[in-house]
Amino acid sequence: MTKLTHLDDSGAARMVDVGGKSPTDRSATAAGFIRMSPATLAAVREGSGPKGDVLAAARIAGIMAAKRTGDLIPLCHPLALDAVAVDFTFEAEGIAVFARASLTGKTGVEMEALTAASMALLTIYDMAKALEKGMVIENLRLIEKTGGKSGDWRAA
Amino acid sequence: MTKLTHLDDSGAARMVDVGGKSPTDRSATAAGFIRMSPATLAAVREGSGPKGDVLAAARIAGIMAAKRTGDLIPLCHPLALDAVAVDFTFEAEGIAVFARASLTGKTGVEMEALTAASMALLTIYDMAKALEKGMVIENLRLIEKTGGKSGDWRAA
Amino acid sequence: MTKLTHLDDSGAARMVDVGGKSPTDRSATAAGFIRMSPATLAAVREGSGPKGDVLAAARIAGIMAAKRTGDLIPLCHPLALDAVAVDFTFEAEGIAVFARASLTGKTGVEMEALTAASMALLTIYDMAKALEKGMVIENLRLIEKTGGKSGDWRAA
Amino acid sequence: MTKLTHLDDSGAARMVDVGGKSPTDRSATAAGFIRMSPATLAAVREGSGPKGDVLAAARIAGIMAAKRTGDLIPLCHPLALDAVAVDFTFEAEGIAVFARASLTGKTGVEMEALTAASMALLTIYDMAKALEKGMVIENLRLIEKTGGKSGDWRAA
Amino acid sequence: MTKLTHLDDSGAARMVDVGGKSPTDRSATAAGFIRMSPATLAAVREGSGPKGDVLAAARIAGIMAAKRTGDLIPLCHPLALDAVAVDFTFEAEGIAVFARASLTGKTGVEMEALTAASMALLTIYDMAKALEKGMVIENLRLIEKTGGKSGDWRAA
Amino acid sequence: MTKLTHLDDSGAARMVDVGGKSPTDRSATAAGFIRMSPATLAAVREGSGPKGDVLAAARIAGIMAAKRTGDLIPLCHPLALDAVAVDFTFEAEGIAVFARASLTGKTGVEMEALTAASMALLTIYDMAKALEKGMVIENLRLIEKTGGKSGDWRAA
Repeated sequence: MTKLTHLDDSGAARMVDVGGKSPTDRSATAAGFIRMSPATLAAVREGSGPKGDVLAAARIAGIMAAKRTGDLIPLCHPLALDAVAVDFTFEAEGIAVFARASLTGKTGVEMEALTAASMALLTIYDMAKALEKGMVIENLRLIEKTGGKSGDWRAA
Repeated sequence: MTKLTHLDDSGAARMVDVGGKSPTDRSATAAGFIRMSPATLAAVREGSGPKGDVLAAARIAGIMAAKRTGDLIPLCHPLALDAVAVDFTFEAEGIAVFARASLTGKTGVEMEALTAASMALLTIYDMAKALEKGMVIENLRLIEKTGGKSGDWRAA
Repeated sequence: MTKLTHLDDSGAARMVDVGGKSPTDRSATAAGFIRMSPATLAAVREGSGPKGDVLAAARIAGIMAAKRTGDLIPLCHPLALDAVAVDFTFEAEGIAVFARASLTGKTGVEMEALTAASMALLTIYDMAKALEKGMVIENLRLIEKTGGKSGDWRAA
Repeated sequence: MTKLTHLDDSGAARMVDVGGKSPTDRSATAAGFIRMSPATLAAVREGSGPKGDVLAAARIAGIMAAKRTGDLIPLCHPLALDAVAVDFTFEAEGIAVFARASLTGKTGVEMEALTAASMALLTIYDMAKALEKGMVIENLRLIEKTGGKSGDWRAA
Repeated sequence: MTKLTHLDDSGAARMVDVGGKSPTDRSATAAGFIRMSPATLAAVREGSGPKGDVLAAARIAGIMAAKRTGDLIPLCHPLALDAVAVDFTFEAEGIAVFARASLTGKTGVEMEALTAASMALLTIYDMAKALEKGMVIENLRLIEKTGGKSGDWRAA
Repeated sequence: MTKLTHLDDSGAARMVDVGGKSPTDRSATAAGFIRMSPATLAAVREGSGPKGDVLAAARIAGIMAAKRTGDLIPLCHPLALDAVAVDFTFEAEGIAVFARASLTGKTGVEMEALTAASMALLTIYDMAKALEKGMVIENLRLIEKTGGKSGDWRAA
């Protein structure tokens, strides 16, 4: 039967014990999208060019959140990340975010990448919400991971 | 022309000054969804019943994240929340989360509700990711807000 | 039947909604004790006099923890404390701590006082543990609260 | 003469330098107890079964606090914990907590285990305090540690 | 004789009790400067224009640090800031920062403005330190405050 | 041409990837100064002797801030510090602080030492500001680093 690794036999939540594992190189990339109207998108684009800080703020928010993942997700291990990067692309109906985290460690960085992407998207929402409350965050997911016992993985 | 409230005339990011506003009753409700396979859904459901902590952990993660919103989203004000609640419903293809925050204050709690929903969903992802890395977070959005200068709002 | 205020009808944890309450003056005092051998006690006393920082460090730890109570206890409200003070008395078999917190707000500061006392005692343990691992924290409790709907209260 | 390791020769607080130490496997288990009336105990038990989140919330609070120990106890090192687990047993006059932390590192995890136990107990207090303010936390102590230069230790 | 408000009669540190004070409008502006070589200054300037995030990152760091002042400075009150803004000017021998914070509250925001300025400058140092380790932070000071019992004040 | 290591080719901020580096012994020492009037200096000195906690509080603030550097400076790596020490010397026109951090790791601890010095100085400012708002923080700088690819360095 399938079983959740974060529950013990009694169903109690716990951090998975990674004590017996050896550190290996690991990385994860997450992606997500925030859908918005053309008018809002134009405002964010204008506020992110030579004259504005919007995406820079969202990028910093994502990077800082990645470093705090173990403080936010109850059963995540605190990790000494080697690198975090957050990038954006303007698309026709919104903005896509890509967040990549990596470390040499005993456990993967999927949650760090997902947390970074999530907080970057929420920061865009925050900065544009006076223009459009109906923006929607979509398709937040892991797109790739490398390393670790389960090996490499790529979203279908 | 539309303009982002979180940028000054030079495009620099700033916290919007709420100094001249009077505290009023405000609330916000956000929702989101995590799509997963039937097998994973069954495992989460089993790990959330009498025998397991999954949704309790996700709920606590969401509530605690709501209280830290001002610490995570760069331009959010630190807020003295009156209440936060996070609920889940099992649906056919995944789990829906609803997060509601309220306060009597000078600025709204949309970001607190969205942050709670986001972290609750990521916690579910974390606890089930050993079973299925391809789970997707979808449709994370504000569904309602009340109070404040812009008045009540409800997603279409 | 008695019912826990922090659970809703379905048993789900939630922050109690204080939205309808008016701010009033509130205070709480907590106390606790750390039992240790005479040799350890002498070392702490020596490290806390003109030449040492032990109790100063424990006091600061307690005060800082009080300010973070809402970040540590899942269902506590974030509070704008008016004051926190932490004091110690050397007794024959250990050190007693007293922590007092106060605010003008919608909810009480019992948890802030208890968290301050707890962290102050743990800091003493930390600084003296190389001498004696068997120190015991005892009798950590609320000794008094004032204000709020439930009025004044004093431990029997 | 005994001397506190966390003070330098002038009595100033400092983090003990672990730079010359090699990482080894270490663990620590702490325990504590919260004494309460039969009526409160019954309410907590009811709120922790199939229908309630009380102990799940306390467990999560303990695990999250363990990860923040270095942020709470002034002279503790920030540690990359391998595992944290928090368990409870209902006893006749209250609830016992056991918290275990482990890592492969240069310094022990006694404070992480004690902090987890302490915050789990305070969370129970918080959730039940509307029923009984006079609950008392007792006998919070280290019960066992393994590894490190000082070797294994078990409370008498 | 002069006396430090943050010490009680026994010399123990404490948070000043602001419980009897009424909230009033307050603001504070701090300034500071980071001195660097012309080559480093040119690199920062290039990394802060249309093509780079340096000052945006420093601005966000300053704003976020202001919100955490009560978490960093042991005896500061946690404050519900109304606004924070951080600005920079390029000068001949380095970069000047100006940080302004404001709130309606019982205590001043001098420390919030100073913390914001300090962290913004340290972030610039961090981003440019591979080019020049000898950069120096100078003249970090309060330049103006308004409101509160002690009234308005401006640096000589 | 010089280039900032914390920006990618498009000018976007990122954490420098330290994944390919081997851990080595590293240390950094930062210094700074807070200038104040003789009357304020006398009050701080009196509040720091046998009867007072001023410098103990500042020391703890510095040590705790060093541990949080990765949480405050956007592009700093989270680091497992081996040691942090903060010392003060009374001088004729103010107080000098020296902060030293060390670790065995992949990246240096310059920012940790600078952050510790900065927060220690700001804590002194906070505790004495009721006496003199015009105190100035000066000459905050790195004075020495050891280890790492760039080797040892000492301020001129």
